[in-house]
Amino acid sequence: MTAPRSAPGSSLPVTERTRHRRLREQGSLDRAELDAVLAAGFVCHLGVTVDGTVMVVPTVYGSDGSTLYFHGSVASRSLVASPGATVCVTVTHVDGLVLARSVFEHGVNYRSAMVYGVPRLVTDEAEKRAGLRCLTEQSAPGQWDYARRPNRKELAATALLALSLDEASVKLRTGAPDDGEGPDAELGLWAGVLPLRTEWGTPEPDPLLAADAVPPAHIGDRAGRPAS
Amino acid sequence: MTAPRSAPGSSLPVTERTRHRRLREQGSLDRAELDAVLAAGFVCHLGVTVDGTVMVVPTVYGSDGSTLYFHGSVASRSLVASPGATVCVTVTHVDGLVLARSVFEHGVNYRSAMVYGVPRLVTDEAEKRAGLRCLTEQSAPGQWDYARRPNRKELAATALLALSLDEASVKLRTGAPDDGEGPDAELGLWAGVLPLRTEWGTPEPDPLLAADAVPPAHIGDRAGRPAS
Repeated sequence: MTAPRSAPGSSLPVTERTRHRRLREQGSLDRAELDAVLAAGFVCHLGVTVDGTVMVVPTVYGSDGSTLYFHGSVASRSLVASPGATVCVTVTHVDGLVLARSVFEHGVNYRSAMVYGVPRLVTDEAEKRAGLRCLTEQSAPGQWDYARRPNRKELAATALLALSLDEASVKLRTGAPDDGEGPDAELGLWAGVLPLRTEWGTPEPDPLLAADAVPPAHIGDRAGRPAS
Repeated sequence: MTAPRSAPGSSLPVTERTRHRRLREQGSLDRAELDAVLAAGFVCHLGVTVDGTVMVVPTVYGSDGSTLYFHGSVASRSLVASPGATVCVTVTHVDGLVLARSVFEHGVNYRSAMVYGVPRLVTDEAEKRAGLRCLTEQSAPGQWDYARRPNRKELAATALLALSLDEASVKLRTGAPDDGEGPDAELGLWAGVLPLRTEWGTPEPDPLLAADAVPPAHIGDRAGRPAS
């Protein structure tokens, strides 16, 4: 059974685009839920329209709770096309397969956030550094202070975009299949969830490093930990 | 180092949309590479334009090597909007974090396929059953024959869309960071890849099943296996 979702804390505003229209899956407009989905990932799918055609591009992001940052080479088509146009950024975590008695009731347990808005090109140098820090720390906490930070030339070669989290929604599904109390339960078939797990593996050193090089704790300690 | 990609076998046609424009990441127009990326997953991100706004929706898919099938309730906005309009379907597998000496060279090892086209609503009943079988077997091989297959009413309530794989491209990145032979190597920092692994967990039975219910082998045998 899908657990009912409470709606504590602050709510996300409902717009024509974020209003949930279907009942079988769970929509949430709880900001804490949005923050949790965004915090659990670091790759989003950015939807933009380029020359009249939609493109969906996987890219890394960072979220500071009110703004989602994403970046890329200044030469990248999708980023050049973004400023001024509404984009949709989707972050999805797949948690398992829902294996029901009937094919029709099969599905996926997942958590997904969709953010709509017009991205703003970040030009202020201090904000650009803060945004890149947010983006770097999202996937690799500790790396901003450990690795060499961007110099002026690298900063200039990077287009950083900021997308407000003001218009966003969350959808998720949890729990067992939905046909356990219907007529199909009589079929005597096994039903349940096959969970999908993501975890970090053992760090693989660059072959150019000395053989005895040891990863710093903020990297090495992640091996074996859940990744979403 | 990123391994050079050979281009054996049949090639995917190059179009204005699928031409690779950037050098640092690897583009491939090898059909076998496309098939491999699609075969390794079951959730795609579907980009459609609805009322002039791009939407990126996670959804399950099946691929038979020449056609990608995806579905949904007839009531779903994004699917109703699709027929006649070009969509972009993206499938992404994240394989690891590329942790370089410099923040600028940080990145992600990944495999990603993008498919462009105008989806066709499948109306022929035999093709609809074949497409739904393909879609079901993509994530859960064995379930089409094990579970109860769709009846006429369920079939009618499902919109199945078929997208040709004729216009598609693959991008991927593998291997160590790229700054091991540049001046940043002198910094003496650890660099390498933190791999990300997805695997299937132990099946979780529906609590409504008898306590001694055992999953069939085609489900139970997947526990602990890589999932992408």
